[in-house]
Amino acid sequence: MTVEEICRRAYENKYLTARLTTDQKNSLICAAACDLVKRTDSILSANQEDMKRGRENGMAPGLLDRLCLSEQRIEQIADGMRQVASLPDPVGEVTKMWKRPNGLVIGQKKVPIGVIGVIYEARPNVTADVFSLCFKTGNTVILRGGSAAASTNLAIVDSLHSSLEAAGLPADSVLYIEDLSHEAVGTFMKMDRYVDLLIPRGGAGLIRNVVENSTIPVIETGTGNCHIYVDQYADIDMALRITDNAKTQRIGVCNAAESLVVHEKIAPEFLPRLSELFKGRVSLFADQKARKYLVDSYEATDQDFGREYLDYKMSVKTVKDIDQAISHINHYNTGHSESIITDSYENAQKFLDEVDAACVYVNASTRFTDGNEFGFGAEIGISTQKLHARGPMGLDALLSSKYIIYGNGQIRE
Amino acid sequence: MTVEEICRRAYENKYLTARLTTDQKNSLICAAACDLVKRTDSILSANQEDMKRGRENGMAPGLLDRLCLSEQRIEQIADGMRQVASLPDPVGEVTKMWKRPNGLVIGQKKVPIGVIGVIYEARPNVTADVFSLCFKTGNTVILRGGSAAASTNLAIVDSLHSSLEAAGLPADSVLYIEDLSHEAVGTFMKMDRYVDLLIPRGGAGLIRNVVENSTIPVIETGTGNCHIYVDQYADIDMALRITDNAKTQRIGVCNAAESLVVHEKIAPEFLPRLSELFKGRVSLFADQKARKYLVDSYEATDQDFGREYLDYKMSVKTVKDIDQAISHINHYNTGHSESIITDSYENAQKFLDEVDAACVYVNASTRFTDGNEFGFGAEIGISTQKLHARGPMGLDALLSSKYIIYGNGQIRE
Repeated sequence: MTVEEICRRAYENKYLTARLTTDQKNSLICAAACDLVKRTDSILSANQEDMKRGRENGMAPGLLDRLCLSEQRIEQIADGMRQVASLPDPVGEVTKMWKRPNGLVIGQKKVPIGVIGVIYEARPNVTADVFSLCFKTGNTVILRGGSAAASTNLAIVDSLHSSLEAAGLPADSVLYIEDLSHEAVGTFMKMDRYVDLLIPRGGAGLIRNVVENSTIPVIETGTGNCHIYVDQYADIDMALRITDNAKTQRIGVCNAAESLVVHEKIAPEFLPRLSELFKGRVSLFADQKARKYLVDSYEATDQDFGREYLDYKMSVKTVKDIDQAISHINHYNTGHSESIITDSYENAQKFLDEVDAACVYVNASTRFTDGNEFGFGAEIGISTQKLHARGPMGLDALLSSKYIIYGNGQIRE
Repeated sequence: MTVEEICRRAYENKYLTARLTTDQKNSLICAAACDLVKRTDSILSANQEDMKRGRENGMAPGLLDRLCLSEQRIEQIADGMRQVASLPDPVGEVTKMWKRPNGLVIGQKKVPIGVIGVIYEARPNVTADVFSLCFKTGNTVILRGGSAAASTNLAIVDSLHSSLEAAGLPADSVLYIEDLSHEAVGTFMKMDRYVDLLIPRGGAGLIRNVVENSTIPVIETGTGNCHIYVDQYADIDMALRITDNAKTQRIGVCNAAESLVVHEKIAPEFLPRLSELFKGRVSLFADQKARKYLVDSYEATDQDFGREYLDYKMSVKTVKDIDQAISHINHYNTGHSESIITDSYENAQKFLDEVDAACVYVNASTRFTDGNEFGFGAEIGISTQKLHARGPMGLDALLSSKYIIYGNGQIRE
């Protein structure tokens, strides 16, 4: 099938998926999770092909690790699917309803978006995760995974299709673009006639390509240049604990902190202790004032303040007051997650009000920006744009709304 | 100033506008309304220049009418601004807040989007309307009006700037792109670094150009191929009254009905009366079955069913049941407004559930799809896309959200 044919099939299928009952959707997701586990052998052998090709092509160890499946990882994927099945079904909820003076009763109801496209890189778990989130919300999904995971993705999609067929539900609820060419992605991004939403999941290059070329509405996910601001009135022990957690608990993720902003009045006391804590573990790229209190630091360039290291590296900036801290953060951040450590009520409120990001924290680690940690039960990604959804996106982000209007003969005068 | 300089200035201004108090915003909008009325003479003389140029260029009478201002129209524009000032300020509302097991308290708060760009055609009232809606919601706005209204728009923007300056508020809260070239629009649409949202208001060509070329997230507004479905169980008098209102009360608007779908069992009774009602007023483009009951109809082509006439014309399609009606509507509609006329509870519910459009009605005219009629007090446009906002967009559509998280030292394990 060509990309256009795939998109048209998704479009023709969308009302079938949208009208499934909650029971049909939940049972199918649970059955698909079991089927996936039953097929462990064939999925692992497909994954071995991908791994072999990856090794031959000199794929980096970190990427190989993301690509690699095991019996245990397939069990985890299946558990994730069962968790999605157990969430409440948001489709059909009428969030408000009111009566107009002319007697019209207007309600706003949650409905599936329709057809959702997802372009992602070499993480085969995304294939099953995204399917269950989209199916749960009554959406038809078109997947386009990276070439490195091609065999694994096809094995997973095969399993999903056979689960759908066995249940007598529309197999076109999930479609997969096998064509690995750049042209295929280019065509996909222009299919706004058939596709309602496109979500790129992957590195900055992929996301930029989609934002620049898609005619389908896009939700940007991803990059996080997150800051911890240690205010003049911070509890130093708490500041050390949170900075350490936000920087080092997991370095390769978008909600890890990349930059530290420190009030100059607390710097003489805080920075030497941080220097001690991070010694041999985290390299610090700091401005002049901060370097006076740091052992083994590097001089920060302007680029350092804008960098998402995803590594044991952190930039350090001193400021003379909270206003300077807020402007620094609003200038360099990517609108993801920022935290102030303070015991000042006024500064906490000011930071919450004035910092421009999806998630703004007082006295907590930025690592909590996550659908599960927020209590959404599952997550399709973290939006760093301001339209439709901002921050961790749960099931609600995969829904649109429609107005339903009950009349009894009203005409407009 | 180049387009890029204008966008950068808006970006640098955005937090100034976002932090204004409700009182500052409301007072300014009222003062700007008064100033506009005070400047009636100079605005009308600028408008005369545009009108003269329009006549010389052979502008169509309908467009000249939209372009033309008068003392009374300026009063109406000022009244519209005062109405926006009188609406509740939605900025800062925390729509939900919950506590996590680890003690984190998470709230979702409404915040301004930031910088909003609006590209529009020759309607000078849009300049003042859009400014007051964006300013009320704490957004900085960049306007790019059509060349036909260039002098009028500049006179209005001058007035707004002097009101802002007189109040000591940031004049860059509204910026205007004077460059009338196509290149200027092209550059504007790529300024995603500075601009958060782009709204095109105008014809299908303008909207298509923006959707295809913008790297800024876009909200599509506009085209409406709206249907009235007269069900087998319709009250025929009501069906006639609503069809007449939806088609003829105002023909040039997006919520006017363009297509009639009729159950074949009611066609023999309903269509002759419609034929009589529309005689000499509305031309009907109908399928074979319908034409048997119509005097003076034309044969409908497939194109007719997809056409937004914006004229005294209407397509007519007969169907054998409600399922066929719903598939016909979902195939040809533009996702705007659709109405069923019926006394069947089951068919009413089915239509509300299965028709895919921003606004779905039972027993009412599609002409009610409008921010004022919905009780929003004002409207920036009617979204026909599914992301962010769908249907009439009031102040809420100009807001984003951010999560504010209160902790007391939480770190992620």
